[in-house]
Amino acid sequence: MNSILKVTARILLLSCFCISFSLRAQSDEAILKAVYTTSLTNGMSYQWLEYLSNTIGGRLSGSTNAELAVQYTKRELEKLGLDKVWLQPVMVPKWVRGEKEMAYFETKGELNKVNICALGGSIATAEKGLKAQVIEVNSYNDLEKLGEAKVKGKIVFINRALQPELINTFEAYGGCSSERYRGAYEAAKYGAVGTIVRSLSSRQDDYPHTGSMSYGDLPVEQRIPSAAISTNDAVKLSEALKKDKNLEFFLEMSCQQFDDVQSYNVIGEITGSEFPDEYIIVGGHLDSWDLGDGAHDDGAGVVQSMDVLRLLKESGVTPKRSIRVVLFMNEENGLRGGKKYAEVAKEKGEKHIFALESDAGGFTPRGFGFQGSDLMLSKIDTWRSLFKPYLIHYFEKGYSGADISPLKSDGILLAGLRPDSQRYFDHHHAANDTFEHVNKRELELGAATMTALVYLIDKYGVETKLEAKKIKD
Amino acid sequence: MNSILKVTARILLLSCFCISFSLRAQSDEAILKAVYTTSLTNGMSYQWLEYLSNTIGGRLSGSTNAELAVQYTKRELEKLGLDKVWLQPVMVPKWVRGEKEMAYFETKGELNKVNICALGGSIATAEKGLKAQVIEVNSYNDLEKLGEAKVKGKIVFINRALQPELINTFEAYGGCSSERYRGAYEAAKYGAVGTIVRSLSSRQDDYPHTGSMSYGDLPVEQRIPSAAISTNDAVKLSEALKKDKNLEFFLEMSCQQFDDVQSYNVIGEITGSEFPDEYIIVGGHLDSWDLGDGAHDDGAGVVQSMDVLRLLKESGVTPKRSIRVVLFMNEENGLRGGKKYAEVAKEKGEKHIFALESDAGGFTPRGFGFQGSDLMLSKIDTWRSLFKPYLIHYFEKGYSGADISPLKSDGILLAGLRPDSQRYFDHHHAANDTFEHVNKRELELGAATMTALVYLIDKYGVETKLEAKKIKD
Repeated sequence: MNSILKVTARILLLSCFCISFSLRAQSDEAILKAVYTTSLTNGMSYQWLEYLSNTIGGRLSGSTNAELAVQYTKRELEKLGLDKVWLQPVMVPKWVRGEKEMAYFETKGELNKVNICALGGSIATAEKGLKAQVIEVNSYNDLEKLGEAKVKGKIVFINRALQPELINTFEAYGGCSSERYRGAYEAAKYGAVGTIVRSLSSRQDDYPHTGSMSYGDLPVEQRIPSAAISTNDAVKLSEALKKDKNLEFFLEMSCQQFDDVQSYNVIGEITGSEFPDEYIIVGGHLDSWDLGDGAHDDGAGVVQSMDVLRLLKESGVTPKRSIRVVLFMNEENGLRGGKKYAEVAKEKGEKHIFALESDAGGFTPRGFGFQGSDLMLSKIDTWRSLFKPYLIHYFEKGYSGADISPLKSDGILLAGLRPDSQRYFDHHHAANDTFEHVNKRELELGAATMTALVYLIDKYGVETKLEAKKIKD
Repeated sequence: MNSILKVTARILLLSCFCISFSLRAQSDEAILKAVYTTSLTNGMSYQWLEYLSNTIGGRLSGSTNAELAVQYTKRELEKLGLDKVWLQPVMVPKWVRGEKEMAYFETKGELNKVNICALGGSIATAEKGLKAQVIEVNSYNDLEKLGEAKVKGKIVFINRALQPELINTFEAYGGCSSERYRGAYEAAKYGAVGTIVRSLSSRQDDYPHTGSMSYGDLPVEQRIPSAAISTNDAVKLSEALKKDKNLEFFLEMSCQQFDDVQSYNVIGEITGSEFPDEYIIVGGHLDSWDLGDGAHDDGAGVVQSMDVLRLLKESGVTPKRSIRVVLFMNEENGLRGGKKYAEVAKEKGEKHIFALESDAGGFTPRGFGFQGSDLMLSKIDTWRSLFKPYLIHYFEKGYSGADISPLKSDGILLAGLRPDSQRYFDHHHAANDTFEHVNKRELELGAATMTALVYLIDKYGVETKLEAKKIKD
């Protein structure tokens, strides 16, 4: 069959789809309209986010704020008249930043203060601080070439910028994030005494961006302090090093790792009317970094997920399957909540057919990234026209979300909300991830878009191989 | 022919299109990639916008700032090595706000200050201000029902909110904008002494939003002062009126209309290599309201349009047609620049085939609205896949832009850049339309998207009826 005929055949098939689709489209269109209208006129997500952000604030795992967030969201879910609301216990790491960090470098006797912050998981410097010469690299891969001779006793400055030409800023972030996570581990192997990593930000500004790092299997005595430096100061330091490669950098941090503490995932459920043993979950993570108030990462995902269940009820939908909102604890520095949820689901033999995470900021939604089979995706694709009035156009294979990834198996479709990504890394993990940078309408459109997809999947199911085979036969 | 066969036939035709398309797609893809990469790594739009916004500031027609903007953009265009840069004279209205306005209402002897601003074109109050009772309406259409008996001697408060459930905020704006423009004209007919119009904002906040109003054919002695009130204060005033319908409102404004003054459209041109007498124009408006610095409205459109010509050159494109950037003067309160440009083009018999305006803010671009024939649009539609990597998906019939609308005729395709609209009316015509609310990447993506469309239209032309007939024959 030549390609034109193939296309024609596929179109004939698609046309049949379209005809059957139009028969049921009216009521789905009406439901989606109700969902979006309710979210934009009577949504709760913005109000919840204001409390999480402004009354509670940053919610690092193991902190008092994280506990307050657990109690607050449980209380709010209980007001919604769901069938069940409960806390799922999970032990989480507790890392504390301590006093605000401080750093400067000296050029010609002049002291240049720079904006830094400890990376999450880093050890502190000695009490009097750390002072050493600096060696600049673009990636930890450069360290091998330099060798111990040039690295030993120095602070390694990994000055790797996000590639601005990448349209999806998550892709740009992905191209640098292992420098932050593994940088200290790799540098310590060559005898470095500390690492400074250029902030993973899309912008030139003065905010240092934290994030998790790991020492891997490095013995405790070989571990070195690791900090992020603002993008403006990274440029400044790099320029200064060109003039004086022997300049000295001073760093002082007092962060500390404590024993694990008890925490919780917060879960609410509408039990399915026809298939109560089939689970659809929607979630975000309740913990955040400590520098800002975590409004975009991931307060937005938390409140949107909570509103999904409420918007379904308000729009008159009685789900056939059981729909759960799961507010995961400890995505940022351990993923313990995501792992625990999957572990318990497996123990109980709960059949999860779909999981949706919102963890990419409260910006205007564009669509979804999906992890699942081609068959699953081809079914979703027939819903495109339903989303068109809401300017939702992105339905592609790709990453879903960290917290739901432990649920991955053949029988489940995973999805991640894909909001506009352009501003996300201006705020991510920094002191400017705050409530005033979230737009009410954009947040509410995201909640509605998630609700719409959950509604359709609850109604029509997820295409599994078995069902597909039936259709073929 | 039944509908399935029709679809099939159309698909066969489309497939032929696709095959011929794939032969030439490589190089178009490469050009678009160069355009986007250049804009994101080496764009000028953000730097130009910073100067326009922070060094010059608000640029109301007839003001010194508007003149400075003319001189600055001309100078910058001259640096780009275009074939021609010139100023096109145009007389513009000059309205001046004067001292900052002030307003309050009295309830139980308590004075409640409210945030207001004069609407552009309004007369001042008497020097000692205006004090009167208030009558609240939802629209000027309500006035007829109330009649002179209930309106005479009062301030008419038009408290019409933007509909939040409309996804496109421009549609919500359109549903209220005539209240602002005609409100005073209609209220004066019933003997009102002033109007206060709820700000056309998507948000609840304290910023009053100005904008143009008109007295139409109303005799000078019947004209009444007209102001906008912030959305928060509109709610407050409405609540207060429920408790005390006799409360008094005080308003003081010292704005003034002067004689028209000389100003200019700023124009730059790359003369076409094959069809120099066919013109493609791209533009935005150089004037802005006076409360903020006009970064989104329409500094963004100005700098993006300027960068279109530069990005074409930087990406190695030699246009076949003549490409002009036109920075229109006086869109906000007269459209004199747009009218003048069309008038001169007509006088000279210049054949314009395409005009593109960016006047909807510097937000992430989603696509274009088009005014043109179905044939023209069907050609554009074949370019969708070229734009997909840049998440540009919106190609629909609809509004293009105010400044280019006087060029409308059968032979020209008009287009308006459609950025994400969710935040636009948070800033539009208000003191918070400022540089820091424009994101660099979003602005640059808009410039690249405009450049990409201009490149394709220059290369492949616009489908006219004549050409279409040839294809058919």
